[in-house]
Amino acid sequence: MGRHEGDDHAAEHEQHVSEDAEEEEAVAEHERNASNVSTESLLAVSDDVEEEETPGGTQSSHRLLAYSDALLSIIATVMILPVAHTKMEADEELDENLQLLLGTKMAVYLMTFLIVTVAWAAHIRLFQVIVRIDDTLALLNLACMMLITLLPYTFSLMATFPSHILGILLFCGCVMVIGLIQSLIVLYAFSRPFLLQDQIQVCEDRSVYRHHILKVLLRVPLMCLLAALCSFFCYQLSYALLALVIFLPYISQGVLWCRDKLLGPAEEDPEQDMFYTFLPSEPLSKERVEAFSDGVYAIVATLLILDICEDNVPEPAWVQQRFNGSLVAALRSYGSEYLAYLGSFATVGLLWFAHHSLFLQVSRTTRVMGLLNTLSLAFVGGLPLAFRLTHELPRAALRDERRAVQASCVLVFGAGVFQLATWVAALQGGGRRTLRPAVRYGGPEHVFMLAKLALYPAVALAAFLLTCVLSRFSVTIFHLMEVATPLAFLLLRLMVTIALALLRRLFCPRRGESENGEENMQSSVPFSPLLI
Amino acid sequence: MGRHEGDDHAAEHEQHVSEDAEEEEAVAEHERNASNVSTESLLAVSDDVEEEETPGGTQSSHRLLAYSDALLSIIATVMILPVAHTKMEADEELDENLQLLLGTKMAVYLMTFLIVTVAWAAHIRLFQVIVRIDDTLALLNLACMMLITLLPYTFSLMATFPSHILGILLFCGCVMVIGLIQSLIVLYAFSRPFLLQDQIQVCEDRSVYRHHILKVLLRVPLMCLLAALCSFFCYQLSYALLALVIFLPYISQGVLWCRDKLLGPAEEDPEQDMFYTFLPSEPLSKERVEAFSDGVYAIVATLLILDICEDNVPEPAWVQQRFNGSLVAALRSYGSEYLAYLGSFATVGLLWFAHHSLFLQVSRTTRVMGLLNTLSLAFVGGLPLAFRLTHELPRAALRDERRAVQASCVLVFGAGVFQLATWVAALQGGGRRTLRPAVRYGGPEHVFMLAKLALYPAVALAAFLLTCVLSRFSVTIFHLMEVATPLAFLLLRLMVTIALALLRRLFCPRRGESENGEENMQSSVPFSPLLI
Repeated sequence: MGRHEGDDHAAEHEQHVSEDAEEEEAVAEHERNASNVSTESLLAVSDDVEEEETPGGTQSSHRLLAYSDALLSIIATVMILPVAHTKMEADEELDENLQLLLGTKMAVYLMTFLIVTVAWAAHIRLFQVIVRIDDTLALLNLACMMLITLLPYTFSLMATFPSHILGILLFCGCVMVIGLIQSLIVLYAFSRPFLLQDQIQVCEDRSVYRHHILKVLLRVPLMCLLAALCSFFCYQLSYALLALVIFLPYISQGVLWCRDKLLGPAEEDPEQDMFYTFLPSEPLSKERVEAFSDGVYAIVATLLILDICEDNVPEPAWVQQRFNGSLVAALRSYGSEYLAYLGSFATVGLLWFAHHSLFLQVSRTTRVMGLLNTLSLAFVGGLPLAFRLTHELPRAALRDERRAVQASCVLVFGAGVFQLATWVAALQGGGRRTLRPAVRYGGPEHVFMLAKLALYPAVALAAFLLTCVLSRFSVTIFHLMEVATPLAFLLLRLMVTIALALLRRLFCPRRGESENGEENMQSSVPFSPLLI
Repeated sequence: MGRHEGDDHAAEHEQHVSEDAEEEEAVAEHERNASNVSTESLLAVSDDVEEEETPGGTQSSHRLLAYSDALLSIIATVMILPVAHTKMEADEELDENLQLLLGTKMAVYLMTFLIVTVAWAAHIRLFQVIVRIDDTLALLNLACMMLITLLPYTFSLMATFPSHILGILLFCGCVMVIGLIQSLIVLYAFSRPFLLQDQIQVCEDRSVYRHHILKVLLRVPLMCLLAALCSFFCYQLSYALLALVIFLPYISQGVLWCRDKLLGPAEEDPEQDMFYTFLPSEPLSKERVEAFSDGVYAIVATLLILDICEDNVPEPAWVQQRFNGSLVAALRSYGSEYLAYLGSFATVGLLWFAHHSLFLQVSRTTRVMGLLNTLSLAFVGGLPLAFRLTHELPRAALRDERRAVQASCVLVFGAGVFQLATWVAALQGGGRRTLRPAVRYGGPEHVFMLAKLALYPAVALAAFLLTCVLSRFSVTIFHLMEVATPLAFLLLRLMVTIALALLRRLFCPRRGESENGEENMQSSVPFSPLLI
């Protein structure tokens, strides 16, 4: 667990200081009572005391989780490849293709993304309870990862052959085995309590927690078993069951969040630190949300260069034959792909940058924020398709080109808007639990953040509207948008600098800044040249 | 910077406590002397005091570096794709293909990997000096990343058209622009010293450092400029120059290390904490080595599933036509690819596991360890090729099949042996600076680590030798090896447990463990059931 994680738990830790004292007392008493002090309890105590240098075998789970996040983020974005690589004939109408694409492949991609993120969220929850690992857990986790990587494939089989039982059986089988391995992990960890979270570790009656966690964990495999059995009689029913399994957490979160907004927040129950609550305000490890997002942004940014490296190195014979040996002419024919790569990398990079700025101000992530972030990432994952559409269709008919650009604008808009929504969700309740103090109550950092996050949605919307009016220049407009947005970021910084300088001149000419009434201005104005 | 980073610097920090006190005094004096206290020095002090909640604009570089590592590790392994996707005709002899592959594409892959890791090492060095970032640095770094992602492509252009000037010019242009952006980053960071490492930050004469760093940084772009100019007259000369640029750090490290081994270590000069020394013992950020390795392992583990998801979902029409609608029969025809995927994931996963175990015991990474780790990763990156060779050739002639399996064994062996070499390098000098105390002086953990690391090289070697003797069963042997090795890990754990239990029985029957003479046994035996 890195420093960020530390930050997250700092506040929590303060709350538990008194409890900790009690806990330690309880342990001490336990030691006095039990003459045959078990190795486990001794270890548990020593783990508490020096967490960094734990005795042999026990390890920090930090790197295991980072590796799992990397694997899962790659797997989540994999299914965009069959969509992006769909062959598009120059003479065909895009409309038909687009319907084909949007109808099936995009749906499969989105579903896969959501399925993998559901598995990822379950993985986070599991390893928020199990905070230390040993070799056995590491190997079990690797087995679990291997099965999760099979999910996209089995799902796309299921989607391609909806009426075959085999697809359903394979998918359900995968989910069931994953559930069983996770149950094994839980049982193993509870048999060695020094692997568990401190709060559970020192609890007298750990079996309550174990029972609760297993109940939540096994719910999904059991429903999959039911779906698999159903498929022999009526496969439509098993699809309904599977949809329920996958989307129940999302739906229940959405409903709870809406209820919170309409009827005011639910009473803060004392058991809020209970795990596996599925409440929208349940904390999610911020570090892991960041790691997963980084993985998605990194793989999306490089998906096009993977293609370029593989496909766009011309054969010497081909260059000799078609371009009379002129390499420059041969490379010029790939021009639009280079442009698409640069545009894609810049857009993904800047979206990452906005995400990075956003999460710098966040001190703690909730499940709602995690959900909104996931939706934003799903749009980001669609970007390789967008850029492929815009560079593969310069020859196609006018109307189609416009469609492709508009689809790209929608994707960029979606990615940006859900980032903005994450920020709004973090602001809920004054951001007491979720934001760093400096940005909670407005002030220039607050405004600047809003401007950063609103930039991409605004630009995408503007480009979309412009393509409707100026139908002839849509691709030009799109490329302009790609190139201009990084400049807009710089312009934004310049503008805020100037605005702040003007404000300072207007409101406190010749007065010391420290006499300024507003508290936020006071602390931020001296740093304004650095802030921006 | 996560907890690991913290661990790394913990020892260092102790050394510098007295220096820090001096530094703080110096700063205080500086403040007293200068009536016009600059904002920078104020910020520098406040950064020192509370690093977590730095005032606006300044940010921890942790996430930027994690994202850069993810991007770079993907880019480094990209060039294996053209190698792995080389079309192999069933009727062709593998020998010819293998020569073609090994002759050009593998060389291009290896060179690209080394080039990207050189760029990565330079990036680490740079951000060991600049430890905090702001928005401008984040954007500059993204631009730098974008150019680094172009390196593999320009290099493979250069390799495909060795006599064209254009390839050389593009590659050199890329490297020069990267160098210029990095110089910009250095100049920017030195103009805002609160972004720099604490040691340099409080230094009176920072320009010495700046000068030194810029000199080292600009050496590479200048040599590339020279190579680009040379290419107009004699392109062979520019290749020699480029080779010098890329491999000079490796060669000089190798030479220095050999000299150290032969003539004893060089005198420990007081300026050892000077950066950009290129000494083999210069520390490398352990966290970044781990992050980069994780990225490589993650992308390699999933490269085959990327292919499977894209290529192996059968078309409904095709299934109807060729298999009479039997999905099971259609999927059975992909059997060898599934097997290859499972084998590949298991092998990569377990190599990651060994790497993870190794780095748990490492407290600090040196440049030599980084180099050996890079070589191990280069072999790991070749694994997708190995598994593709073994599953694409069940139809081919007997002798070829054996060649493919042998090539795979060589790759696995290389990956394992360089991991082992990393461990040996960490043990150099008693592991005082590089290892955790528990494993420095032998003991069961030490032995167990050695066994874990030696397992894969031993298995690969055995499989290689077996294929020479039992030429008919080579693919069977290889698949057996893949499946059996995870079991061997479990067996290993069991054996060590039993051996330790036996030792305990033999040497201390009925005696309390605390009376045991050996210090290492004393501390480890009570934990042996947990350790294993």
